[in-house]
Amino acid sequence: MGNLIADPPARRCVIIGAAPNPDLPVKLLRPEDFIICADGGLDHALRQGITPDLTVGDYDSLQNANRLASLEHVTLPVEKDDTDTMAAIKIALERGFRDFLLLNCAGGRLDHTYANLTALFYLQRHHAEGLLIDGSCTAQILENERVELSERCGEGLSLFPFGCQQAVVSGEGVYYPLRSQCLQAGFPLGVSNRIVSDSAWIAVEEGTVLMISEKR
Amino acid sequence: MGNLIADPPARRCVIIGAAPNPDLPVKLLRPEDFIICADGGLDHALRQGITPDLTVGDYDSLQNANRLASLEHVTLPVEKDDTDTMAAIKIALERGFRDFLLLNCAGGRLDHTYANLTALFYLQRHHAEGLLIDGSCTAQILENERVELSERCGEGLSLFPFGCQQAVVSGEGVYYPLRSQCLQAGFPLGVSNRIVSDSAWIAVEEGTVLMISEKR
Repeated sequence: MGNLIADPPARRCVIIGAAPNPDLPVKLLRPEDFIICADGGLDHALRQGITPDLTVGDYDSLQNANRLASLEHVTLPVEKDDTDTMAAIKIALERGFRDFLLLNCAGGRLDHTYANLTALFYLQRHHAEGLLIDGSCTAQILENERVELSERCGEGLSLFPFGCQQAVVSGEGVYYPLRSQCLQAGFPLGVSNRIVSDSAWIAVEEGTVLMISEKR
Repeated sequence: MGNLIADPPARRCVIIGAAPNPDLPVKLLRPEDFIICADGGLDHALRQGITPDLTVGDYDSLQNANRLASLEHVTLPVEKDDTDTMAAIKIALERGFRDFLLLNCAGGRLDHTYANLTALFYLQRHHAEGLLIDGSCTAQILENERVELSERCGEGLSLFPFGCQQAVVSGEGVYYPLRSQCLQAGFPLGVSNRIVSDSAWIAVEEGTVLMISEKR
């Protein structure tokens, strides 16, 4: 008998949202990425010559609705529990993806931006890696783990408790020392630190952390 | 002897941040508002003919630095624990303000946006009312309280646990019923509800909630 549990796809799943950003960072895409457009994200993708592998949404305000027939697409009801991004994430998790990049998922409406940060937390809780990249910022959720920041030397670094009252974080190679530093949800103490070493790392010792690094 | 504890100022404190929005919603301002510009927020304010009562920042990238001499201003060190917005909030709290409106504090860099949501939580913990308005969205932090939504009929309504794993919310006059509804930080279930009655209200029964209403 073969494996009953299939290996997850090694391909990354990129979800393109509908935030009204002028340009998608197409240089971040790899040829082998599995690309899902969440509703109006399809308009952004097509405008930049990107044909998604799958589209998910209710399409109630889609400009390129005529293109749906030629694409694999899932049509959601207008009244639904999930946001379009969450629906896309659930479908991708069911298909076995465990590595996610969210683009065009921040910077538009604040409720959508916040919901998409929550979606990062959902991914983390479902044993998947998730990055949300918005302009110069990269957001991810960390819990009970150590992350190497070797490729981010020179970037800004902000750390916030997420989904918890407080979090405890240590790290090296950052400008403001982090030695079992307690971060509170009601006080943005972890803002605008800086990664100053090629061997920098941070470790979340307690709680859940939203880490946002920022290219300068 | 007079009162040892002064009554807090009845005036509202408006903090104008540095997010790169094209236009400040000047129609939201009242003549009696006490206006603080947080660093680059001064450029936005001056461009729209608004002269602040106070300016706070390190001014390292301010275009209108020559205007500072004619304004009350606090100069922060470049290396500081507080964000410019948080520094402005602390000064205003010390001066007795308890009613805050944050403008131009979202929609720019994601780390700044998130830090400013945290600043709303800080206000709530310091017994002050805080609204953050960004485009069509109004954000506020609620804890152990009931809010009347009578003036927001027709608006979208999203509710997220903030600084806690879960929150329990009830409400009436909203499209998707809220009856001791449990909201989880890792799942955006409370997104895109709708206020459908002039007598709508919501009550936070457990935890802390970030409420974002959205004009349609």
